[in-house]
Amino acid sequence: MAKYIVGFDLGGTKMAAALMTPKFEVKARSRQRSKAHESGDDIYGRIVNTIHNAVAEAKIDPKKELVGIGVGSPGPLDPETGTIIDCANLNWSNFPLAKKLEKEFGCPVVVDNDVNVGTYGEFHFGAGRGAKHLVGIFPGTGIGGGLVLDGRIYHGASGSAGEVGHMTLDPHGPNCGCGKPGCFEAFAGRNVIAAAAAAVALRGQAPTLLKNKGSDVRTIRSGALKRSVAGGDEAVEHVVRRAAHQIGILGANLINVLSPDTLVLGGGLIEAMPDLFREEVKRALKTHAMPFLRKFCTVKIAELGDDATLMGAAKLIAEKLEA
Amino acid sequence: MAKYIVGFDLGGTKMAAALMTPKFEVKARSRQRSKAHESGDDIYGRIVNTIHNAVAEAKIDPKKELVGIGVGSPGPLDPETGTIIDCANLNWSNFPLAKKLEKEFGCPVVVDNDVNVGTYGEFHFGAGRGAKHLVGIFPGTGIGGGLVLDGRIYHGASGSAGEVGHMTLDPHGPNCGCGKPGCFEAFAGRNVIAAAAAAVALRGQAPTLLKNKGSDVRTIRSGALKRSVAGGDEAVEHVVRRAAHQIGILGANLINVLSPDTLVLGGGLIEAMPDLFREEVKRALKTHAMPFLRKFCTVKIAELGDDATLMGAAKLIAEKLEA
Repeated sequence: MAKYIVGFDLGGTKMAAALMTPKFEVKARSRQRSKAHESGDDIYGRIVNTIHNAVAEAKIDPKKELVGIGVGSPGPLDPETGTIIDCANLNWSNFPLAKKLEKEFGCPVVVDNDVNVGTYGEFHFGAGRGAKHLVGIFPGTGIGGGLVLDGRIYHGASGSAGEVGHMTLDPHGPNCGCGKPGCFEAFAGRNVIAAAAAAVALRGQAPTLLKNKGSDVRTIRSGALKRSVAGGDEAVEHVVRRAAHQIGILGANLINVLSPDTLVLGGGLIEAMPDLFREEVKRALKTHAMPFLRKFCTVKIAELGDDATLMGAAKLIAEKLEA
Repeated sequence: MAKYIVGFDLGGTKMAAALMTPKFEVKARSRQRSKAHESGDDIYGRIVNTIHNAVAEAKIDPKKELVGIGVGSPGPLDPETGTIIDCANLNWSNFPLAKKLEKEFGCPVVVDNDVNVGTYGEFHFGAGRGAKHLVGIFPGTGIGGGLVLDGRIYHGASGSAGEVGHMTLDPHGPNCGCGKPGCFEAFAGRNVIAAAAAAVALRGQAPTLLKNKGSDVRTIRSGALKRSVAGGDEAVEHVVRRAAHQIGILGANLINVLSPDTLVLGGGLIEAMPDLFREEVKRALKTHAMPFLRKFCTVKIAELGDDATLMGAAKLIAEKLEA
């Protein structure tokens, strides 16, 4: 009888499950878009449903053949117990996600922070193959970070280490969504970039963006920014390069502290404009990272896209089953 | 026959050896002040001499009773091999310190970065007893950092992780001694503080400092700053508090990334004015550290002073001998 595991990505805008062999060959997938203003119980119900759909598509017997589930979830959460401590987006507070799924499916479940898990996916299967000390930076609405030190996800005392986007770029800078002043995220998060792009569009300096998307920050996503830059909106390119440079200063800080061998840059914005980001980040590293530490570190663009979290989560549960 | 180990602190202004039992009871000490413009070989000769002096004072037979030596040294260095890669102060380049001492004394030798080793000393014997994830910040001429993660010194890919003072506080800030712009060290290193204090003394706002020390930055050390603040030089107090606040922002960055359970602040400046520094650092943490991570972290002032490196080095060699 065959054995299968599930890797699950509980994202802000979608949830996705992949049913895999213990050798990480994907046999079936299932995904759903997130709904706004859903109750925590409804979200949990859809997680169960999404896993059942993947299981059904693969035509396996979940009671006998599903041996483990790995989940990447927003946090903060306790990776030891798989309890989500507090997540406004999911309407969960002290929600024992791992325990509930274990009861539901009768198999072991691990839950870890989505950015950690995505970084771990890149570490094992993507841009970080062969690394030992890897730092992942994933700019999006927030700027997420994942740390794999000595080959293992590093959690720290709270379980929630790696809040790299909330390091301070300028103590006198604008307030961040977290309430603190001057975080990197308050300068280089995607909504901030989109807002700056909308502003230059409104003052007539981004005709391509204005024609395609107007000035509604909500609609200016990674693809729109990419097309604007490609279409010759120099003022938007300046906005994006400035943010990319700030991401590079963040990377330099992390090199100076952690001396990783690999710095992986991922997320929709960077994957849309990999060359621009690589160029600006490297320029910032040259100025702000200690040369002796920098020369040990390779900068890479994430390779797995949306699959990073699925794959990392599957790897985590596979390791737990082997232990 | 008894067995003894040596903990050695190779500092910028002095070198010191302590001969200890395997239970870290100090039996003899020896120390020498550093001499300026000495050759690398002369410095090495004085290291050997200092260890011999401690051995002689304890009246033991080094050939039979000295079983290991641990050294904390400036770097960068390779902690695997104990080779000092490059140290301008010591006139060493690719200097195989561990190998030479092993040959000289016929026993195993470990060499690690002095700030790492001092942090490890505080972790085992000082302010960090009972910690699991500890970050040490030691402002002096430079701002050194040591990381003990999961109970072990963290070295990263280069062997030289923990360059916390070279994170960027302001990309447009003054140049640091390392050549990069805007490092924390360029704002809150002791010489920078001393220079700012000298400037306010010259403009007549620090009568106590001016009377005691004049305006020569070289003479304005931690004790002089302490007496100036205690003597009512409010402008100097402002200078020191500003730097202490910046050290606090640095601590917040490290909490956000590493989520330690313990943040140890040490070095002459902080040990001279512990209350002032604790107050400003805590204030900065409240503004700049993520609340969820901050509540897992206790701020402590180093307890071992100059002995931290000796003790940490002794612990490192003791562990190597047990392994």
